[in-house]
Amino acid sequence: MLDHARRLVPLAGLALAITLPTMPGFSPALLAQERPEERDGGPEAAIAEAIEKLKDEGLNRSQVMETLSYLTDVIGPRLTNSPGMRHANAWTRDTLASWGLENAAVEPWGTFGRGWSLDRFSMQVVEPQCIPIIAMPKAWSPGTGGPITGKVVLLELESEEDYATYEGKLQGAIVLVSDEREVEAHFEPEATRLGDDRLLSLANAPDPADRRRQGPPSGERRRPTEEQMAAFRARAAVLAKRDKFLMDEGAALVVDCSPRGDGGTIFVQSASVPRDPDAEPQGGGSPFGGNRVRPWDPEAPAMLPQVTMAVEHYNRLVRMIKQGVEPTIEVDLRVTFHDEDLTAANTVAEIPGSDPELAEQVVMVGGHLDSWHGAGCATDNAAGCAVAMEAVRLIKTLDLKPRRTIRIALWSGEEQGLHGSRNYVSQHFGARNDDGELKTTEEYDRFAAYYNFDNGTGKIRGVYLQGNEAVRPIFRRWLQPFDDLGASTLSSSNTGGTDHLPFDAIGLPGFQFIQDPIEYNTRTHHSTMDSFERAQADDLKQAAVIMAAFAYRTAMMDELLPRKPAPGR
Amino acid sequence: MLDHARRLVPLAGLALAITLPTMPGFSPALLAQERPEERDGGPEAAIAEAIEKLKDEGLNRSQVMETLSYLTDVIGPRLTNSPGMRHANAWTRDTLASWGLENAAVEPWGTFGRGWSLDRFSMQVVEPQCIPIIAMPKAWSPGTGGPITGKVVLLELESEEDYATYEGKLQGAIVLVSDEREVEAHFEPEATRLGDDRLLSLANAPDPADRRRQGPPSGERRRPTEEQMAAFRARAAVLAKRDKFLMDEGAALVVDCSPRGDGGTIFVQSASVPRDPDAEPQGGGSPFGGNRVRPWDPEAPAMLPQVTMAVEHYNRLVRMIKQGVEPTIEVDLRVTFHDEDLTAANTVAEIPGSDPELAEQVVMVGGHLDSWHGAGCATDNAAGCAVAMEAVRLIKTLDLKPRRTIRIALWSGEEQGLHGSRNYVSQHFGARNDDGELKTTEEYDRFAAYYNFDNGTGKIRGVYLQGNEAVRPIFRRWLQPFDDLGASTLSSSNTGGTDHLPFDAIGLPGFQFIQDPIEYNTRTHHSTMDSFERAQADDLKQAAVIMAAFAYRTAMMDELLPRKPAPGR
Repeated sequence: MLDHARRLVPLAGLALAITLPTMPGFSPALLAQERPEERDGGPEAAIAEAIEKLKDEGLNRSQVMETLSYLTDVIGPRLTNSPGMRHANAWTRDTLASWGLENAAVEPWGTFGRGWSLDRFSMQVVEPQCIPIIAMPKAWSPGTGGPITGKVVLLELESEEDYATYEGKLQGAIVLVSDEREVEAHFEPEATRLGDDRLLSLANAPDPADRRRQGPPSGERRRPTEEQMAAFRARAAVLAKRDKFLMDEGAALVVDCSPRGDGGTIFVQSASVPRDPDAEPQGGGSPFGGNRVRPWDPEAPAMLPQVTMAVEHYNRLVRMIKQGVEPTIEVDLRVTFHDEDLTAANTVAEIPGSDPELAEQVVMVGGHLDSWHGAGCATDNAAGCAVAMEAVRLIKTLDLKPRRTIRIALWSGEEQGLHGSRNYVSQHFGARNDDGELKTTEEYDRFAAYYNFDNGTGKIRGVYLQGNEAVRPIFRRWLQPFDDLGASTLSSSNTGGTDHLPFDAIGLPGFQFIQDPIEYNTRTHHSTMDSFERAQADDLKQAAVIMAAFAYRTAMMDELLPRKPAPGR
Repeated sequence: MLDHARRLVPLAGLALAITLPTMPGFSPALLAQERPEERDGGPEAAIAEAIEKLKDEGLNRSQVMETLSYLTDVIGPRLTNSPGMRHANAWTRDTLASWGLENAAVEPWGTFGRGWSLDRFSMQVVEPQCIPIIAMPKAWSPGTGGPITGKVVLLELESEEDYATYEGKLQGAIVLVSDEREVEAHFEPEATRLGDDRLLSLANAPDPADRRRQGPPSGERRRPTEEQMAAFRARAAVLAKRDKFLMDEGAALVVDCSPRGDGGTIFVQSASVPRDPDAEPQGGGSPFGGNRVRPWDPEAPAMLPQVTMAVEHYNRLVRMIKQGVEPTIEVDLRVTFHDEDLTAANTVAEIPGSDPELAEQVVMVGGHLDSWHGAGCATDNAAGCAVAMEAVRLIKTLDLKPRRTIRIALWSGEEQGLHGSRNYVSQHFGARNDDGELKTTEEYDRFAAYYNFDNGTGKIRGVYLQGNEAVRPIFRRWLQPFDDLGASTLSSSNTGGTDHLPFDAIGLPGFQFIQDPIEYNTRTHHSTMDSFERAQADDLKQAAVIMAAFAYRTAMMDELLPRKPAPGR
């Protein structure tokens, strides 16, 4: 799951009023339906039997954890365009093909940039005593050119004038750029499930379109005040030239403190390219100003090596320095940039539809195959891939013969901005031209729905409807067999941050399930401890069964799943 | 706090029946006392005023966290007889002297063995991909003689026959000797305080002497069954020759999995010396048999380098290997054994008594200054030392002029068996001869009490009375001013594992406070993450004030604190 994706992908059509009886694909008969054998237009008894088979197979003979282990343990991190990602593309394609899926392919979606992989990394304080350090290089950080040893300098920049203090003193230095971070005792559990209070609040969530008109309800996070923004801008202005200053001064390594997490867990993402403080702001007037070049851009300017350190070790260094100690660190960071092929790809495969009239119509399931680089990234999002793969494996193994084609897509480039799914959607279904006008394809008209799983390891508790109220009565019935597995809640709410958004943005039914958070925000999401251990087998088995059931149900309907009003088509 | 110290130190006198009116030092008048100015025989109003001053100074102008930071951040790990320990001895002596304490000294208690320190440590998987590894060498592990690279082999020994599988295959290998360990999601908070239920259970605990006669109450941990013991012995018999086998086969490194903890935290203690399976069992017939030579013994036989790995990384390697991957690890472990001086020492210092008739009598406070090696060891037990130091600093700063001498002792060798306090007690107060007869000194007769703090960072909730019911009414009154700070509970119960035990074992009043556990068992106790962050400032300030108050109160009494019946004196 991407950070802050809400800001990256415009949610189209949210401001449109939704009036149920006029929605395309909506039939009042669906609500009034009493005879189960006519529901969804198919032989309901046979479908119900298929659902029971899915439950039995998926809960008792699941392979989801084997799939997950291979992805996280054997393949490991899957940073887009790295060898791990390409390995994952190939292995998932081959595995899906070995299960009998058709058209299994690694489908390029366009140019992403260069890959990056770690060749060697170790870091320790060597003077005045040896302290093995828990740290992780940032993705796309350059290396140190072999082992180096440097004095540790704490950089404290409160104002522009503070730069002068450090001039001529940073040659070869290991520079600490964060403040000491307070760490609290863990009086709250790291792992939680959604309680009735939270589920009820989701169930009672307003239509996102209404909500958008009304503004956030009281108690929700407010925008920062003008005063806060001014302080933030002043701080940003001081820091804007920091990275360039450190390069000019010849620093050897930039070290920051893991922004959250403790106990040896680091949250770490991408290296940053030094901003040119004199450049024109791009990309929406970020208060940081300057260029927005990404480190995976093969033309990115030179960067310093960048490492994130566990808070306990980082804080200790700060406190040592403030007490007059002058620590020396030895670090060996060697990396490879992979720029021989800048093209990135998704893995796709299909169970072809069995109904000649509907086989060209497509139901999709998926998760993102790419990850950050600090761990095997089990919950973000090998879990989603393993669940989607298990869902299609279950349908294939049970030979359920869906009427429509069921296609699995395992995305890449998600962590850097939903690139794989966005490009896939625009190439297959539709995109806006320069005037903001949506141009769609024939595939758009034949598309049924996309179901995504990317909120960690937690089991499915329901579905975010993204304001598509027409599907509520349908999903309500579809969830009924899973009431005993804890999945009952439908929320009109939007949810963001992952690969259903590009579908939703052009009016296609794209859904992310409501999931129990377990340890997602506290321990695993973009951390070095997103390991296989953090995946909960029972949760993922349940999720695979429900995803299979939803895909199968969608493939068995007489009509396509209802859509929201087409956004400016 | 030592592991399992209950087994190491006999608790003397527990089987004696305690009848209140006949206990030495017990006066029924204490219970009936109504006139506060006569309590403890001193001018109670002045004492109460002193207690209020201690609270004000200790809660509002505490230096406990500064002391703690120096011990944990600047000095760091304090393994007995290592440079860190000697640094800590010298620094605490000098700091106590700088606060105006007298007779500040580093007092040798005898021969411990060689010290050990880490010079370099790094470890990473280098093939088939780079995986930075979180691991920590075991204390007193030998080094690898510089960086080495070896294939990783998983050793699975279910029976004697399994050894043959590995013969000739371990030369230069990195050998994994643990099983994969299951890790559960953290649905329970890591940090807790004692609830009313637990405090009530402590308050209602039976006299330990009665409890010993009656056996453990239902619901308590039982001894293993005969069947379990047989299985344990069979497994131990298979494993007894493991370390020697690995040495004979030329393995390069022994790696086990952290026995508990996760998320990057490792629990790690001492390296083990290979057992000679043919040797006669020593030391109480351990089912493992063989010798019991300790790795700090300068004559210890050769050992292999030994490292403990974070569970997520260890488990991943096991799963990779079971899926056919052959990982290679690069490790650089360099250490120094310090055998130039085998003598270990405690730090002591005094506030001399102001009453000429009582100044030769001594009240003691303390904690252990030594630690394991994986972190600054804030909660085990820099916290206890910082609290005890702060307690005497408060009394000195406020110039309270205690009648008896108050002595602080900061022990060493605690983690390897309470050696510092045991030797101190036998040298100063008394010991048993070969016939088990207790021989005491004049200092024994002049000893008032010892108060220890070594159960983590949690604030004081009361006192374990160690069956000394005669002190209950006294401590009840002493705790009254701290009721608003959560310290109210007196438990007849014993508690073990730390340095009050040697005092208690020869009938001297030695007490460990009841403390909130916070994260002691879940995160800090003997772990690599026992860092300054895990110490709770408000808790330690409270503890220092209460320890100061107890020491001061004890020093102001007309009589010595009542004792339990002398154990076989």
